[in-house]
Amino acid sequence: MKGSFNPVQMIRSKRDGRAHSAAEIHTFIEQFGTGGVADYQMSAWLMAAFQRGLDDQETVALTEAMLHSGKVLRLPSVKAYKVDKHSTGGVGDKISICLAPLVAACGVAVPMISGRGLGHTGGTLDKLEAIPGYRVELEPKAFERVVREVGVSMIGQSAELAPADRRIYALRDVTATVECIPLIVASILSKKLAEGIDGLVLDVKVGRGAFMKDVESARALAKALVRVGSRAGKRVVALLTDMEAPIGRSIGNGLETREAIETLRNGGPADTRELTLTLGAEMLVLGRAERSLPAARARLERALADGSGYERFLRMVAAHGGDVRVVEHPERLVRAKARLTVHAPRTGFVAECDAYTLGVSGVALGAGRTRAEQAVDAHAGIELCAQRGERVERGQPLAIIHARSVALAQSEAARVAGAFRLSAAKPKPRRVVIARVSR
Amino acid sequence: MKGSFNPVQMIRSKRDGRAHSAAEIHTFIEQFGTGGVADYQMSAWLMAAFQRGLDDQETVALTEAMLHSGKVLRLPSVKAYKVDKHSTGGVGDKISICLAPLVAACGVAVPMISGRGLGHTGGTLDKLEAIPGYRVELEPKAFERVVREVGVSMIGQSAELAPADRRIYALRDVTATVECIPLIVASILSKKLAEGIDGLVLDVKVGRGAFMKDVESARALAKALVRVGSRAGKRVVALLTDMEAPIGRSIGNGLETREAIETLRNGGPADTRELTLTLGAEMLVLGRAERSLPAARARLERALADGSGYERFLRMVAAHGGDVRVVEHPERLVRAKARLTVHAPRTGFVAECDAYTLGVSGVALGAGRTRAEQAVDAHAGIELCAQRGERVERGQPLAIIHARSVALAQSEAARVAGAFRLSAAKPKPRRVVIARVSR
Repeated sequence: MKGSFNPVQMIRSKRDGRAHSAAEIHTFIEQFGTGGVADYQMSAWLMAAFQRGLDDQETVALTEAMLHSGKVLRLPSVKAYKVDKHSTGGVGDKISICLAPLVAACGVAVPMISGRGLGHTGGTLDKLEAIPGYRVELEPKAFERVVREVGVSMIGQSAELAPADRRIYALRDVTATVECIPLIVASILSKKLAEGIDGLVLDVKVGRGAFMKDVESARALAKALVRVGSRAGKRVVALLTDMEAPIGRSIGNGLETREAIETLRNGGPADTRELTLTLGAEMLVLGRAERSLPAARARLERALADGSGYERFLRMVAAHGGDVRVVEHPERLVRAKARLTVHAPRTGFVAECDAYTLGVSGVALGAGRTRAEQAVDAHAGIELCAQRGERVERGQPLAIIHARSVALAQSEAARVAGAFRLSAAKPKPRRVVIARVSR
Repeated sequence: MKGSFNPVQMIRSKRDGRAHSAAEIHTFIEQFGTGGVADYQMSAWLMAAFQRGLDDQETVALTEAMLHSGKVLRLPSVKAYKVDKHSTGGVGDKISICLAPLVAACGVAVPMISGRGLGHTGGTLDKLEAIPGYRVELEPKAFERVVREVGVSMIGQSAELAPADRRIYALRDVTATVECIPLIVASILSKKLAEGIDGLVLDVKVGRGAFMKDVESARALAKALVRVGSRAGKRVVALLTDMEAPIGRSIGNGLETREAIETLRNGGPADTRELTLTLGAEMLVLGRAERSLPAARARLERALADGSGYERFLRMVAAHGGDVRVVEHPERLVRAKARLTVHAPRTGFVAECDAYTLGVSGVALGAGRTRAEQAVDAHAGIELCAQRGERVERGQPLAIIHARSVALAQSEAARVAGAFRLSAAKPKPRRVVIARVSR
């Protein structure tokens, strides 16, 4: 196979709508790693795959080929079931930070590898790094030790995991081949499977603040993730969740980490808590800690009430070198020099609170980045004083902008105000969870 | 436009089936030249164009953008109409060599830029170089002088003409994006328009020895060439001609040049003569030398009979530094060390004489190349003793293999014999010209 492998033949085959064998896909990805397939050939193949599609068998093969392009963690010393959660990205999505320790406190190990924010969506690593000293880079051995001893570790992707995915993703980004379900599925799953997990819960965001703008395409992605993940031998469930408005009451790294801590302390906004409990219940069932979702939810509620989830978070932060005093005094996570309140121009209900606009504004304030190499401001962001569906009086605060300067805060005031649409009638409540997709 | 040009947006647009503006295409090709568009982006765009197509307006813009990526010849001192012929490539296709001087002898200037052979199809430059001393590289000024003084010059493509086409073609070759009519049209026309011609006759080959295997796709290509060439302001006619069997009685550089000379001396195989007259008549009409095809044909026949076409060839060879004594003694073009005759295994008619198989055999004998950098053997090739439709007795010669060694000739004997299919019944005669496409 390898001796006679011809990348042009491979591209032609997909160009003409034919399916590849698993062996062909493995050789193609392997040759991409060793230089036998050039970037310009990969990008032509990616466009052909975008146009002609990949079936589930091809997507499984691509996932596994990218997975095996690098190190695959095994975590043999972790005896508990290992389950992770992946979100397709949203605005104000701090759920991982409260979810992972809470699930660990209920007996399921969470070896979580997260990303950074890019564009209008945030990233868990940036949020964790708002805690002074928290190290997101751990060697595989140290990662395994923390997962074994604490039940949860949250780190960044090392260059050793799924390197083919990293290179292919970079090419997709500059060749307009991002929005392709099988390529998205293979990218997500190859990275997650490299963690050595038994099960995975996927939070597929839908709405203006998400990658998938409509329920139909989000459902197609969720179904493909569940099918392909299951064929790759993992237990996988996906939830479609709302991303028209931001999650909770905060956007920005320190602000969101504070909200996650409040949630772990049995407080926090209702939607943040709801999403945490719903995703967590799925993880406990996949991880065999509970047999039913209601029982799992009750257990998670106890772990919030008795502080055991919070205690896991403290231990994890300590194990990563983070300053636990900041966790104990989360107001220290919110120390922007300038704060500017945006007021309601009239009395009414918050009919819309545009996640996309607020995400873009967060980036402009320094909470996010538009290029991978940019640094972020841990204290910048937007505090939402009114969530969707809530009533506000004229002159009441809608949001507080946190920024490193008054001028910067002022420059975003109009955009933040414009993200809110007020209506006289009370809007219909929206569900946090839109649908559930399992095998 | 240039400041805000985004190649990803351009690729996305074609990916989704939208049409580009002419300005976008010009900027895209310009940026490809200066590094603003990377190879991997061009190849993704090429695959998107392959899948989604380009309309005529886009193809004209692409042609002109590639044309203007380099020098465009004007030949202001040549007062005659300038007309060229382009063939899409075949086996035994030596027509340019007899056609160009013959047309020049009838008053139409022929500034011809040709290519080399690659794969099973031959190239005019390799055939001309069988004449010792013939220089295919002339500076633009010298080229113009030869066209002005002799009426015809045949050279190779300089790096200065349509460099974007050269780079894009190299990418298409390794990304399975060759077989795409608008990309083929833009590639052919951008190179030909760089010659500064007024008119162009296209010989679109059809059949097993050609790039286009069936009449339908050849006709689609011919129509697109005529439409786009006309929109680019040129007078263009296309003929679909048969390429199931080789043209004439020779395959190989020296052998074919000898046949072209015989044809110019009012001899040669009937089909070689017929194709020369048919294509030539179109060129004379496009070049305003004659008003009708029959009158043009009669004039070409006179130029064959009175030797004026042959005389032009001698003058052109001399102007290019070639040894005219070899032209006058064309047996000197055929001096392979080994000759091996392939005999008819039984009596019958030649029902098939497979151009593709014979073309591949010619390459194996050294007459062609599989990689652009390979040298060719001027004396290697295959002489056909029986053409399609002719009757042979058992034991009579079908072909003579010319090679640099007996061993090499013997190694190709079975393949050459296998290219002939003999039948008891006389096969239906095939037309040389299948169809004519004009505006």
